Amino acid sequence: MNYSSRVKDLKTSPIRKLLPFSIEAKAKGKKIYHLNIGQPDIKTPESFFTSIANAKQEVLAYSNSQGDPDLIQATIDYYKTYNMEFEKDEILITNGGSEALLFALISTCDPGDNVIIPEPFYSSYTGFGSIVNIEVSPVTTKAENGFRLPTKEEMAKSINKKTKAIVISNPGNPTGVIYTKEEIQTLAELAVEHDLFIISDEVYREFVYDGEYTNFNDIEEVKDRVIIVDSISKRYSACGARIGSVASKNKELMALMLKLCQGRLCAPTLEQIGATELYKTPSSYFEKVNAEYKRRRDVLYNGLKDIDGVICHKPAGAFYTIAKLPIESAEDFVIFMLKEFELDGETVMMAPAEGFYSTPGMGKDEVRLAYVLNEEDLKKALKILKAGLEKYKSIKNSQK
Amino acid sequence: MNYSSRVKDLKTSPIRKLLPFSIEAKAKGKKIYHLNIGQPDIKTPESFFTSIANAKQEVLAYSNSQGDPDLIQATIDYYKTYNMEFEKDEILITNGGSEALLFALISTCDPGDNVIIPEPFYSSYTGFGSIVNIEVSPVTTKAENGFRLPTKEEMAKSINKKTKAIVISNPGNPTGVIYTKEEIQTLAELAVEHDLFIISDEVYREFVYDGEYTNFNDIEEVKDRVIIVDSISKRYSACGARIGSVASKNKELMALMLKLCQGRLCAPTLEQIGATELYKTPSSYFEKVNAEYKRRRDVLYNGLKDIDGVICHKPAGAFYTIAKLPIESAEDFVIFMLKEFELDGETVMMAPAEGFYSTPGMGKDEVRLAYVLNEEDLKKALKILKAGLEKYKSIKNSQK
Repeated sequence: MNYSSRVKDLKTSPIRKLLPFSIEAKAKGKKIYHLNIGQPDIKTPESFFTSIANAKQEVLAYSNSQGDPDLIQATIDYYKTYNMEFEKDEILITNGGSEALLFALISTCDPGDNVIIPEPFYSSYTGFGSIVNIEVSPVTTKAENGFRLPTKEEMAKSINKKTKAIVISNPGNPTGVIYTKEEIQTLAELAVEHDLFIISDEVYREFVYDGEYTNFNDIEEVKDRVIIVDSISKRYSACGARIGSVASKNKELMALMLKLCQGRLCAPTLEQIGATELYKTPSSYFEKVNAEYKRRRDVLYNGLKDIDGVICHKPAGAFYTIAKLPIESAEDFVIFMLKEFELDGETVMMAPAEGFYSTPGMGKDEVRLAYVLNEEDLKKALKILKAGLEKYKSIKNSQK
Repeated sequence: MNYSSRVKDLKTSPIRKLLPFSIEAKAKGKKIYHLNIGQPDIKTPESFFTSIANAKQEVLAYSNSQGDPDLIQATIDYYKTYNMEFEKDEILITNGGSEALLFALISTCDPGDNVIIPEPFYSSYTGFGSIVNIEVSPVTTKAENGFRLPTKEEMAKSINKKTKAIVISNPGNPTGVIYTKEEIQTLAELAVEHDLFIISDEVYREFVYDGEYTNFNDIEEVKDRVIIVDSISKRYSACGARIGSVASKNKELMALMLKLCQGRLCAPTLEQIGATELYKTPSSYFEKVNAEYKRRRDVLYNGLKDIDGVICHKPAGAFYTIAKLPIESAEDFVIFMLKEFELDGETVMMAPAEGFYSTPGMGKDEVRLAYVLNEEDLKKALKILKAGLEKYKSIKNSQK
């Protein structure tokens, strides 16, 4: 049968690729600590569920294509707390951050165009790119220097005539990097000089432990070029709601993107009601959640430092880090941990980082770790990882 | 700014294009009977809301990318009632029928490929096609002969080397046509002879008033080629849930399409819980709903027949019909109805049918009417339409 090349060539998500091995391990009774996926264990604020339960409607009708007006207003109010000013026609509600990203890519790039992205990056960027025939031109950043951006001149080398946008994640998945004011300024200049859009995925905006989140909003020259991709998934631990948004001061772009929203009719009605309430959550919620993640970050970082040969920077935001392991193939090691290793009936699953790079050969010895488990579980997971790594190395050495 | 051509060239939905005129009319205090949009007024079964209210979870987590296993099982059980046998890996849950259609198109066509579709067709088919750079090669059907399919030879003229699939809606939106056993057989033969997939949008499967719904499932030779696009939106009057599905006996295709599902993570978690309950709704629900729609269909059809110069076939299924009006421009007429006409402070909104055709010039004098209003409102709407048409014709005649 003639399936399309774009779907045949689509890579399996590195986060979900090794799922069959974890299913098999669980079937054998092993307990798995999942460091591979960014599914937080934090409770979703109660208001989400109660507002939906109370909103009982007789007919579950389509909502507006642009989004529920109440949710749009709540989103505007939320952005105000970051000094980001948006008007009603500058916000679109989407099916998760995923659809927001897809719409941003489709609106800025035709087939054969490309976007530059600092690698390692969230693997769905290439996934969405390839199904709509957009290529990724990577700007490589490295574990050894904390995944900081290269100079403007260095980044410009990845730009060609077909480059239409810069895509970034800030705070960064999978690196945990928060871009400095200077880095944001550099990206803005790059966009102006090369006539590019900036697609800024800021779904981890609240998750800042060191340093400070900087937005593009204060840089006047770039206002028309910035497209904010957002989501309530991580912010309020509501991944299953699938409510995201696009925000841009470029009204012309938003009018074009609204046509994409109209094509798929609307985002889910009830979940938008819940999301509206979530945006009214008091800021004390974030203080508590952040303190929790900061403790977890510290547990993970200190634990990794304690393992021989592991190279790892201290992540400043989001809830991931990339660690370089003293082995050749992280994928082989992750499979080993699932298939062959256990400590008191337990093991650890991580995401091999190769899938977060688009330069061939990069990230083979790296893993992405999500610190979405409580401290006690994280400590156990680190103990297992350390023991597993020793065992794996000794097996590999004996095979030499 | 350099927006993509695919978004600049994207046509506005004919269903929503004239929305600004209706907003203006409402602001002036006019009541509008909406025959332009397929938003049913039928109550959503109570079980949808209660199951969601009772399913209170602590963490609203991602659901499976393929779909909630309970919903997949409920979908399988539902298909069994139509003698359509599917296994667990032959179903994917999507963000509405919209995403199901998008995934089916992406999986079968690369940019520059095309699909053949009997026109008039649901306008989102071209919308989704154009954002992923798939062209539509239309097979024209006509109001005068009840929108029946042409012969196989005639249809084959629309096929070329780049044609990858046949897309149909059965029962049909916007025509209300239900394909006969012979027509389904002809489409199956066409697919085999020209190596095409069949993307069959069957979201109106329950809405059959005359004749009988036929599925492709009994035609062995075509099993691997059929992709069923489905949705709970109309079936259970749950348009706002955004729960759809793809079903196909082609496991290889479904494995490829699962990668698309993984890319966007999952469909909304709570709405899947509600959808699972909806699929358990007793068949007596459909009997009542169908009897209601059949009465409405009769009211609309008889009313239209009663208007001088209107050409309209009796729709056998779904809840739409296309009517040819004795005027030159349906769009101009619909704008007239919203801006200039009223009967006791009320008017009617319809969808100009030109946007449901891809052959230039077709459908200019036609409108799509959705019979989603109760009988009394439908009768009023028809009275207003009749009076508006007379008034419009007399103005046009006086201008000659």
